[in-house]
Formats: sequence, C-alpha cells, structure tokens
Amino acid sequence: MQQHIKAPFHNVTGGLFDSVIKADVGEGAGKIIESGGTILAWADPDFPDPAMPASVQQALIDSVNHGVSSHYVMPIGPRELRVAIADKIQRQTGLDLDPSRNIIVTPGSDSGLFYAMYPFLESGDEVLVPTPTYPNNMVNISLMGAKAIEVPTQAENNYQIEKSQLEKHLTPNTKMLVICHPNNPTSVVYRKEVIADIAEFVIENDLILICDQAFEDIIFDGIEFVAPASLPQMLERTVTVCSMSKGYGLSGLRIGYIYTSDTLIDKYYGAAVNILGAPSHLSCAGAIAALHDDTIINERQVRLANRRATVCEIFNSIQGVSCQAPESGILQWINVENIGNGADITQFILQDQNVLVNPGGQYGKGFEGYLRLIYGCFRDDVQLFNACERVKDGLINFK
Amino acid sequence: MQQHIKAPFHNVTGGLFDSVIKADVGEGAGKIIESGGTILAWADPDFPDPAMPASVQQALIDSVNHGVSSHYVMPIGPRELRVAIADKIQRQTGLDLDPSRNIIVTPGSDSGLFYAMYPFLESGDEVLVPTPTYPNNMVNISLMGAKAIEVPTQAENNYQIEKSQLEKHLTPNTKMLVICHPNNPTSVVYRKEVIADIAEFVIENDLILICDQAFEDIIFDGIEFVAPASLPQMLERTVTVCSMSKGYGLSGLRIGYIYTSDTLIDKYYGAAVNILGAPSHLSCAGAIAALHDDTIINERQVRLANRRATVCEIFNSIQGVSCQAPESGILQWINVENIGNGADITQFILQDQNVLVNPGGQYGKGFEGYLRLIYGCFRDDVQLFNACERVKDGLINFK
Repeated sequence: MQQHIKAPFHNVTGGLFDSVIKADVGEGAGKIIESGGTILAWADPDFPDPAMPASVQQALIDSVNHGVSSHYVMPIGPRELRVAIADKIQRQTGLDLDPSRNIIVTPGSDSGLFYAMYPFLESGDEVLVPTPTYPNNMVNISLMGAKAIEVPTQAENNYQIEKSQLEKHLTPNTKMLVICHPNNPTSVVYRKEVIADIAEFVIENDLILICDQAFEDIIFDGIEFVAPASLPQMLERTVTVCSMSKGYGLSGLRIGYIYTSDTLIDKYYGAAVNILGAPSHLSCAGAIAALHDDTIINERQVRLANRRATVCEIFNSIQGVSCQAPESGILQWINVENIGNGADITQFILQDQNVLVNPGGQYGKGFEGYLRLIYGCFRDDVQLFNACERVKDGLINFK
Repeated sequence: MQQHIKAPFHNVTGGLFDSVIKADVGEGAGKIIESGGTILAWADPDFPDPAMPASVQQALIDSVNHGVSSHYVMPIGPRELRVAIADKIQRQTGLDLDPSRNIIVTPGSDSGLFYAMYPFLESGDEVLVPTPTYPNNMVNISLMGAKAIEVPTQAENNYQIEKSQLEKHLTPNTKMLVICHPNNPTSVVYRKEVIADIAEFVIENDLILICDQAFEDIIFDGIEFVAPASLPQMLERTVTVCSMSKGYGLSGLRIGYIYTSDTLIDKYYGAAVNILGAPSHLSCAGAIAALHDDTIINERQVRLANRRATVCEIFNSIQGVSCQAPESGILQWINVENIGNGADITQFILQDQNVLVNPGGQYGKGFEGYLRLIYGCFRDDVQLFNACERVKDGLINFK
C-alpha cells in the first residue's frame, strides 16, 4: 500500500520519540515511564505528579454525577465555555470577541494548529516559520504538501523575530507566517515593537498569520504580552491558537481554542466536525471551572518564577553549558554546543541517567547545539532540581 | 482573506445544522435545546437523558481523584486501552492484532475518519462512496481536494453494495472505497457475501478501503457482522474506523480508534500528534471501564430491539410514509417521498413540532425523499415514542 501514500507522507515515519527509541515506535515514552525513568521532555506542567486543581476536580465529579457528560457537546464547544474564553481573551489582549462568531473550542491545541492552517495550505505554498519553533508547526505544513521556510532567529538578539529576515525569505509563493509566541522552545516573548513589525510585514505582504499562543498564560518579569490579533487590521488575517494545557496545567483534558475574524470563522465551523470531531463534554466542564479559578495560574506563576534561578544555576555551573532564565512558563532552553550535539547528548543522558530531554535540532536547523527541558515538571522543587542534577551529571559524563 | 482560502474550502459554509438554521451558524442545536425543542438528529444514544453507565462513572471519578488525569496520555492512547480494544476486535472479528502495532486511539471517530483518509487522498484522486452514507465521509474527501463518487445503493436490494455498480464507477483515478458498515443512515448491515464481493473488488483494483464501523456494536436479528479487514489480504489495505460513541453510548467522551496493518501504522503514528492531538486522559479511563463491562451494550441491545416495532408502527401508520425495522442500533430511516422533500419536511417539523430530524438528501443524491431519525434517543421508551408521535403529527400536517 506504500505506493498509494501521497507525497507529503513519504517521509513520515514512526511517531513521537521515534528518534530516541527507534525499535519501539509509538511506545517510547510509556517504556521510559515503566522503567522508572524521568521524562523532562513532555511540556506537561507538574508531570508526573497528581496535580488536578481542586476546582477542576469538583467540576468534573459534578459533571460525572450529573450523568449527561456521556453526550456530545456542541462540536464548536458549549457556549458557556466560549463565553468564559471570550472573557479571558478580553482580559489578556483587549480584544472584544463574540463567543458565537469568533471562537471555536478544539480538542487540544495540537489538532487546533493543524485545523487553523488547513483551509489555506496546499501544494506549492510557502510558509515562513521563525525558528526555533514547536516542531509540529513545521510538520503540519509539510503534511499539507506546502513548504516550511525556516527563518532562524539569533540567540544574540534574544531570539526576537526580525522583519528584515522575514523579508529576505519572502517569495511570490509565501502565503503564511507561523509564529509561536511565547516561543517554544526558547520561552522568549516577542516584544511589543517586534509584534508591531510582524503585523506590518503580514499586512504589507497580504499574508495569513497563525499565532501559536499555547504558552501565553505564564509570563515573568513583567514583560508585556501583545497578541498580534489585537493590532489594527490583524484579527481578520490572524488565526490564534491557544491551549488550556500549559498555563492551567490541564494537558490531559485536551482543551484548546482558536479565535479569528467573523469572516473566516464559517470555514472553520463548516469543517469542525470533520477535522476536530468535538471536545470531550467532561473536559469542557473542567475547563469552565478552571477559567473561573484565578488561583490556578497564579500559584504556578509564583512557583515557577522562583524555580528559575536554581535551574539556571545548575546548568550554568557546567563547563561549556549555558542558559538564561526563562521569560515564560515551563520551558528551559540550554546551550550545549561546546560539549556536543544535542541529539547525541539526549541519547546519552537517557542511557546514562534514564532522563529524557529534547534535542534542540528538533526545533529548527542550526539549533543542534541546544537542549530543551521542562523545568515545570514535578510539583515539588526538590524533585525537579534532583532531575536537573541528573541531567547535569549526564552532561558532565558525556564524552 | 477569502482569496487565500484553498479551492477545496471554497464551498465550505457554516456548520452543523447550517441548512436548518442559517441565521445562526454554529449555535443551531444549542438554540433548539434552549427553546425546549427535541433533537432526534444527533446520533447520540439516550440523548438527552443522563445515561453514563455506573462502571464508567466510577472509573472517571477514580481517575479524577487520583489526580493525574490532568496529564497527557500517550498520543496514540494508553497501552491498557489499546489492549482492551484488541480484545474487543478479536471477539468481534476474529482478527488477532498487536496493541502496539495495529491500533491507535482517536479522540472520537470523526477525526478518526479524516485521519484515516488523509495520508492517501490528494487532488485528482477519486473515491467511491456507496450512498446513502454518513455525510462526513463525502465531505472529508472534498476537503482533501479529492472527488467523492457516489455509488447509490437501492432500497429494493436492502441497500446492499453491488460489485457491478462499483465497477461501473471505477476510473484510473479511483484510489479508495469508503463504506459505512453497518450503514449510517439506513442501519443496514452488509451481508457476508457482499463483504466478500467488496474485498474482491478492492484487491482486484488495488484500492484502499476505509471502513467506518461506528455502528458495529449493536446488531439485531442474529445478522452476521463481518469486518472487511478480517478477510484474507484485506487488513493490509483496510483502515477500519471505530467508535465508543454509539454502542457504548459514550459520545461525550470522544473515544474512537482505528486499526490497520503493521505496514501502514507508522504513517499514522508519525502524524498522530499533528492531526489528532491525543485523547483525553479521563476519557481513556472511562473507555477502559466500558470495554470491561459487558452489561452496557447488552442492556442497550435489548432495549432498542424492543423499541423497533413500535417506532416502525408509528411511521408506517402514516399514509404515504414507510419504514423497515432497523438492522442495527439507534438509526431509523424513513421513506417520505410520497409526501414531499425531506429537507422541506425537516424544516416544517422543526417549526410545527419543535423536533429536529435529518433530511435524507444529506446522505447522498437521490435520497431526498427520506428522513433519518435517532430512535435510540431517550432512555425511556414512552418519551421516545412521544417524540416520534410529534414527528408523525408534523408529517401529517405537512402540505
């Protein structure tokens, strides 16, 4: 049947963690967990500790007891959830959106990202992707037969996107720009003036902007977060993709959402059941409770802000290794280029210490000398620091 | 931005129930429920009554209390669930599948169907679709830029698929056959010899078969159910798409699964996070409990089998209207061609009786003279019969 697979799928092989545990495609993470290993490679707050917020637990139990959560919710998400999301967007970005005409709930932001890009992309299209970035933002593009054009950002410039670099990669086939803001893996927040430049670039060149804001909820040091869709003329050409997974720590519930203009939304409504199916009814109940509980994000914000200095200290104490304090929640980006290749180091640390981190090369060409790890893992600081110490030992042992 | 929408999306407008309530795209069903209306148009067992099985409720509550269901499960579904699914497939079809190499859990079978077709279909491909069928099985194809070729089945032949008809529509561009077995909307089960013919046709013409088996769990009158994938040489060219929604009545949890050969599975693994995201952790816990509880399907099987005669009697008592007893669970297909067009009648019944049913034309060309309704709605027989009586009144009042 291989001969019937379409071209964009020719190079698709295996799955998550494929490059780490080739022999056991699809079960990699499960095997590591079973063997007592530590995963600092899943962007899942507090993982693996029990960490369901009490308000969310209660809402889920109430919903189960009520007995109707075995039934479908509206495929675009229940209105009560879309209203709560509109309130959140208003508070965060100043945008005043209509829950019935601008917002669709998605079963997580992964399928949300694919869905956001899908009505636009086809063979021949080029998409500018500032790197490093979330790998699926490149994979999605190639699965649609379009071409991801990597636009590397520079560590020296705090990984900010430069308009001149975007312009350099522009061709008549450029249809879209995909940014991840705050950035995964670097944790960097694009500054107000950078977002203004991006908006100008998008408008001048009549592009679509996909803005992956999965990490928008926890930002440190008072850095101002500006959503590109909130700039003049930008809502109509931006599809913003958000998540309840990172800030609220509800990855397992699979609730995300997209927002865009009234003009584009009907295309998404029309394909919602096909591509997304619908969100879990129970998960929607949990998400509504979470959105009404300010303590969830506040607690994590404080806890993670305090952790950052110690984590950086651990890695900066290793000869040839360096990192900066994260600007947003849960991701630590580490420069290991002076000691080796990130992919080799990742394999080594897994064998030597039974800890899984992510090699930087997964996030874009030119970042092979980096590692990403999730400093948001574990509820308890000491456990997280211990896991980081094991990564440190692996880095020191690596030859 | 409309000019940037790709061709396959040019005709996409609005969403579910768009044709019924044009002015309020996306909120149609919600408005009907709010207004006290009755929905017999959602293939959701027992809707709208509380109907979460006790074993599933307990598993969900245990999972919430355990506190780790806020975390991701494996994107392809936890192994425990895949093992339970493999057992179920073995019992139902005789197929002996490897939970690690043949099965992927999907967040419902809607996204499962899109995902199943996606690695194959592209512009220029033709896909044979025996009709009537689940509308998304045609919409998915067109969203991928391919062309759905409807192959109508005949009421006189109990809607069985005829190999000669498939052959008549075959062209050099035919890449795939998509069947819905048991059929949505007719409820008909394709007989053993028909499945053998289909397999022969697929093998002879080197096609891919997508088999939507969402309704496989409840079949009446001892009719033998044969899964096409269980026939020789067919697993390798079949992607079977299943659901926990219909038989187990767990639509709201959004758990489905696909199974296919070891050869094709890596393509799906490689795109799982992109297209599907991952299933809800909590929903996986509920699904595992459901698969270990035989009473769930048995109870519904008995209850629905008993309902069928009364439902048919109600509609057959109307002059110019006729129906046959369903062969599988929850769907009733009704011939109204002697009194009018199904779309007009649907609109009329909604206005006259505040009951929503589905017009037959949604399921394929040539079936405009039919209605589909969900006789599996409501736990209580009397409530369902009363709703059917209202549809009957609407049919009688229709001019």
